[in-house]
Amino acid sequence: IYTLGIDIGSTASKCVMLRDGKEIVSKSLISVGAGTSGPQRAIAEVLENAGMTRDQMAYVLATGYGRNSLEGIADHQMSELSCHAKGASFLFPDVHTVIDIGGQDVKVLQIENGMMTNFVMNDKCAAGTGRFLDVMARVLEVKVEELGDLAAKSTKDVAISSTCTVFAESEVISQLAMDTDKCDIINGIHHSVAARVAGLAHRVGVRELVVMTGGVAQNSGVVKALEEELGHTIHTSPLTQYNGALGAALFAYQRYLKEQKD
Amino acid sequence: IYTLGIDIGSTASKCVMLRDGKEIVSKSLISVGAGTSGPQRAIAEVLENAGMTRDQMAYVLATGYGRNSLEGIADHQMSELSCHAKGASFLFPDVHTVIDIGGQDVKVLQIENGMMTNFVMNDKCAAGTGRFLDVMARVLEVKVEELGDLAAKSTKDVAISSTCTVFAESEVISQLAMDTDKCDIINGIHHSVAARVAGLAHRVGVRELVVMTGGVAQNSGVVKALEEELGHTIHTSPLTQYNGALGAALFAYQRYLKEQKD
Ligand code: SF4
Repeated sequence: IYTLGIDIGSTASKCVMLRDGKEIVSKSLISVGAGTSGPQRAIAEVLENAGMTRDQMAYVLATGYGRNSLEGIADHQMSELSCHAKGASFLFPDVHTVIDIGGQDVKVLQIENGMMTNFVMNDKCAAGTGRFLDVMARVLEVKVEELGDLAAKSTKDVAISSTCTVFAESEVISQLAMDTDKCDIINGIHHSVAARVAGLAHRVGVRELVVMTGGVAQNSGVVKALEEELGHTIHTSPLTQYNGALGAALFAYQRYLKEQKD
Repeated sequence: IYTLGIDIGSTASKCVMLRDGKEIVSKSLISVGAGTSGPQRAIAEVLENAGMTRDQMAYVLATGYGRNSLEGIADHQMSELSCHAKGASFLFPDVHTVIDIGGQDVKVLQIENGMMTNFVMNDKCAAGTGRFLDVMARVLEVKVEELGDLAAKSTKDVAISSTCTVFAESEVISQLAMDTDKCDIINGIHHSVAARVAGLAHRVGVRELVVMTGGVAQNSGVVKALEEELGHTIHTSPLTQYNGALGAALFAYQRYLKEQKD
């Protein structure tokens, strides 16, 4: 039995194909999200990777900000909060806190026995989100993907005192004008993101195991800065980028089983 | 008796020279603020305009974000909140609410009998401040000074739904890509600023007479949008840009009189 989970975020479209609700057969990630060709391309790619067609999928479930654009393709839609809780519990069964930093938002989920029991979300302010890092990478003329490795070379603490993206950008420009080492600035930027996210996380409470998901979890500098801010080890993996889509594929399998029974 | 008030803001330096604590003799405004040559240039200019020297000033009082950089030049420093209350009460004796939108902050002051009784301030978030308008003017490739006149030509409502400067900038870019009329976009931007500032103002309460000060008060589009949001007439004048410096010069005169008596 094959099920498909599709997560349409603001900045990326992700798909995960599962066999029998437990084995990841194929996955895809296209770096454009809702309102673009990203969703269709991600679906085409995940099917092609597996050499399968839409008709062979027993159940297709869509989640994420842009999930409603897939009516007619997906059998069902679900909130990304539930799917993130589901995906993280599959990858890390002992998870109690999920910190998801997406392209335009931050969510912190409290989890008990694989179910979400509380959450807090920021999607109104760019500070602490992937967008903050995009803005800074552009000013620093480096790629977002390079930020983690560059921060690892930092040897001196540089404080970025503003949390606001706009004011922090000015601070970065001033630091560049003073010839401050880029690696030190980037480390400061990561701590700014971490401080902002930690503030949000403390509102729901942080309990081990702490799992970080979303695209920004691939940035080792943010993960490290957040570990320092929270005083907890943070668990992540390359798969956590697909966490929402994975959760959707798991729910798809559950719904398929339920429909068979009914 | 001549006194001098100096207001060193984040983006502009302003001076006002008063005769006998009641008549404005000279004023100056340099569009760069704290940490630049702006303060010195503003002082030189206000003295030159009046054909006078520093020694002829009975008392010099500094206010604003960068007031501490003038030690040795000013006789005294005072908080800009007090100076704004003082200046606004001089210009509009019946004032009860002052809304000051500066280059990087927004302050709303409650005033009773010329004294500040309560206030609320945002200096952490660029939304609703002059910086928000700077960012938008740059994206729209117009001058900040032109925004008011351009908004007056708007014929259609365009909603900018994000208050965050970063997300609103993306909305503006999308609108431009859809060939939306710039004047309509600018009107939408002014309403975004007004909504944000109104939210702040409601936290201290808004009572007539409402006076708007600071550089952004020169933008008739923001004033109009804020009048609509608040449901109150807003009083302003070209002099309100100098409101903090005016208050400082008034306090300087009071302090001079007090010192004479002691
Ligand atoms: S603090 Fe900065 S990034 Fe956050 S909402 Fe305000 S303008 Fe946007």
